[in-house]
Amino acid sequence: MGLVVQKYGGSSVADAEGIKRVAKRIVEAKKNGHQVVVVVSAMGDTTDELIDLAGEVSPIPSGREFDMLLTAGERISMALLAMAIKNLGHEAQSFTGSQAGVITDSVHNKARIIDVTPGRIKSSVDEGNIAIVAGFQGVSHDKKDITTLGRGGSDTTAVALAAALDAEVCEIYTDVDGVFTADPRVVKKARKIDWISFEDMLELASSGSKVLLHRCVEYARRYNIPIHVRSSFSGLRGTWVSNEPQGDQTMEQALISGVAHDTSEAKVTVVGVPDKPGEAAMLFRAIADAEINIDMVVQNVSAATTGLTDISFTLPKTDGKKAIAALEKTRASVGFDSLRYDDQIAKISLVGAGMKTNPGVTATFFEALSNADVNIELISTSEIRISVVTRADDVNAAVRVVHTAFGLDSDSDEAVVYGGTGR
Amino acid sequence: MGLVVQKYGGSSVADAEGIKRVAKRIVEAKKNGHQVVVVVSAMGDTTDELIDLAGEVSPIPSGREFDMLLTAGERISMALLAMAIKNLGHEAQSFTGSQAGVITDSVHNKARIIDVTPGRIKSSVDEGNIAIVAGFQGVSHDKKDITTLGRGGSDTTAVALAAALDAEVCEIYTDVDGVFTADPRVVKKARKIDWISFEDMLELASSGSKVLLHRCVEYARRYNIPIHVRSSFSGLRGTWVSNEPQGDQTMEQALISGVAHDTSEAKVTVVGVPDKPGEAAMLFRAIADAEINIDMVVQNVSAATTGLTDISFTLPKTDGKKAIAALEKTRASVGFDSLRYDDQIAKISLVGAGMKTNPGVTATFFEALSNADVNIELISTSEIRISVVTRADDVNAAVRVVHTAFGLDSDSDEAVVYGGTGR
Repeated sequence: MGLVVQKYGGSSVADAEGIKRVAKRIVEAKKNGHQVVVVVSAMGDTTDELIDLAGEVSPIPSGREFDMLLTAGERISMALLAMAIKNLGHEAQSFTGSQAGVITDSVHNKARIIDVTPGRIKSSVDEGNIAIVAGFQGVSHDKKDITTLGRGGSDTTAVALAAALDAEVCEIYTDVDGVFTADPRVVKKARKIDWISFEDMLELASSGSKVLLHRCVEYARRYNIPIHVRSSFSGLRGTWVSNEPQGDQTMEQALISGVAHDTSEAKVTVVGVPDKPGEAAMLFRAIADAEINIDMVVQNVSAATTGLTDISFTLPKTDGKKAIAALEKTRASVGFDSLRYDDQIAKISLVGAGMKTNPGVTATFFEALSNADVNIELISTSEIRISVVTRADDVNAAVRVVHTAFGLDSDSDEAVVYGGTGR
Repeated sequence: MGLVVQKYGGSSVADAEGIKRVAKRIVEAKKNGHQVVVVVSAMGDTTDELIDLAGEVSPIPSGREFDMLLTAGERISMALLAMAIKNLGHEAQSFTGSQAGVITDSVHNKARIIDVTPGRIKSSVDEGNIAIVAGFQGVSHDKKDITTLGRGGSDTTAVALAAALDAEVCEIYTDVDGVFTADPRVVKKARKIDWISFEDMLELASSGSKVLLHRCVEYARRYNIPIHVRSSFSGLRGTWVSNEPQGDQTMEQALISGVAHDTSEAKVTVVGVPDKPGEAAMLFRAIADAEINIDMVVQNVSAATTGLTDISFTLPKTDGKKAIAALEKTRASVGFDSLRYDDQIAKISLVGAGMKTNPGVTATFFEALSNADVNIELISTSEIRISVVTRADDVNAAVRVVHTAFGLDSDSDEAVVYGGTGR
């Protein structure tokens, strides 16, 4: 039996009852003979409450102090969790990110882990303790200041520690049973995925699936750490994310892993851009300089009569204003006609490594949308993903018909096999 | 202008408004040309809330984890305070006890400071920052675990940092205007003391005055750091505690510094103890082994006819049960008759270095009590203090008449001068 890293999110430790329930689950793993390292987030709404407090004190809180403030949240949850475990008769010690050797760069509020030196954690578990580590936080390599890792930071802490400790698995406990073939709130017949490859999981994460963040999966893939996403409530087997199916996970990889959707993006269209070299570059340089991440980019062929083309791209709705302002400044130099902004859109993505070798997937996808009267506004593809943009109103219906069309509904028998030509 | 250490308690930073008010006061000191190091406690009831949370999770929280938990409180207040200062246009950095170099022993929940290595604080203020340090916490010298200093720990942090940084003064900001000649809630005419010696302050602190704890004053005396106790609300000059009056503090030292009272103690009487060597030692060894601190001890002369004596002592009410149990175990070996326990007592103490050279103080003290029909049950004296035990019901009247008898009332002219013989 090797070492296991378990991560529990804020909803799993929202109150004393939750902390005691999680403590029992941790002790079970220890009793099963594992060395156990636990990464824990702040309790429930603690972080939001601290953010509110900061807002009351200062309109623009300093990054360094903001991180000092937020890290109080995990300090509370980890100490309570260690107490609850000791109360069950097992030894536990809690460690801050700094004590656990989570070394980051100095970018406050969204630091990146640059090294993990888990000497104290290793000693603690070797002495027989269960080590509890504060998620989401580290210490900067140069100034020794406290940093936080930004959204999804606790998952990344867990994977990074698992890598540094050469763990067997990184278990991410959450409030759902695993990764599903679609959002179960939208598709009642969504099926829990037993195993999914890092690649497919990365595509799902960047297409709107919220169970695991892209950053955490990327880290796990780089160090080849299997992730097991499972419920802290049910204790059932969840979803394994790894390079290859492991142990009894001998099921054939499905053609399609899942259908993801995302309603957090908006679409910007730059109308009437002169179709000559360098024009698009000027537009996207302006967007990049404003530190806006864009997602899909589509350029139509230009109308031969005008020599003008339209360029559309999607971006987070929250960056909409900033993007329009940045583009307006380039209007004179680029010479485009007008800007259109549309935040009533949704992105629907079909993800699966199987589509590389199975032609006809695109056709089936589009036919399903057409049969449901869903209009496609933009299309973008990668090797293992097809994404379309539709009206936001159509998103639920679209996800459902696509889920059914690819045989993903939980009462259907098997994944569909495709023939024919073209993708 | 040198370096000033300021300490703000939990009531001064109970909410966002309090934090902003304190930030302004700190910035004023900085503007006046001082280097400023601030020690801050947890906001208002934060510590109590964390203690409650621990109670929900575990009936006997581990010391190490309890300290990890509680230190989250100062982390929140210090980060918010630093933000509030930066918002006023001044640079501030917050530091945990560990970062500030507060090194302690390993006794969790009531650690003692064994060294302060304030390198980071020194650099921070030399760079022009206001340094905010978490009170009440440190890091253990051996295991590098987070520790807390126990009750009044933030005051001790402030004095220890002031000593290590060779500060001009350690300002303790609180919710009262300073140290008074008696508790102003009991004696309306109590007078704020402008200056008091370390020795008298130590006696007042151990006699029930709650403004400064004994431990903090003791530390300040050892390193000769003047303490200025003052209100964080009014900003008025408060009470200076030091070896000698400083600057314009040329007033003659008063005969009597003040009258303190304490209703937190109980009295135990061991009745019928054989009056021979070693008997008392056995009793007090039993109390010491139970880790109970006793205060006054009185033994009456034994009745010649019986060869038996009574021994009385006072101790914290909270240790009453434990003490009785420990004494009961010695009954057979010591051979005493019975135990009496009385928690309806009060201790009233008169403190002042002046009594060393002014005979008649004791007589005046006892006469005042007698005139008010207050019965004295026990008496105990030191060189600069007289303490008596009375009924708890009599305490307010007793403190008032003594306060008046020694001319301490605020509308009286001067302290009384005594003649006569005897003390």
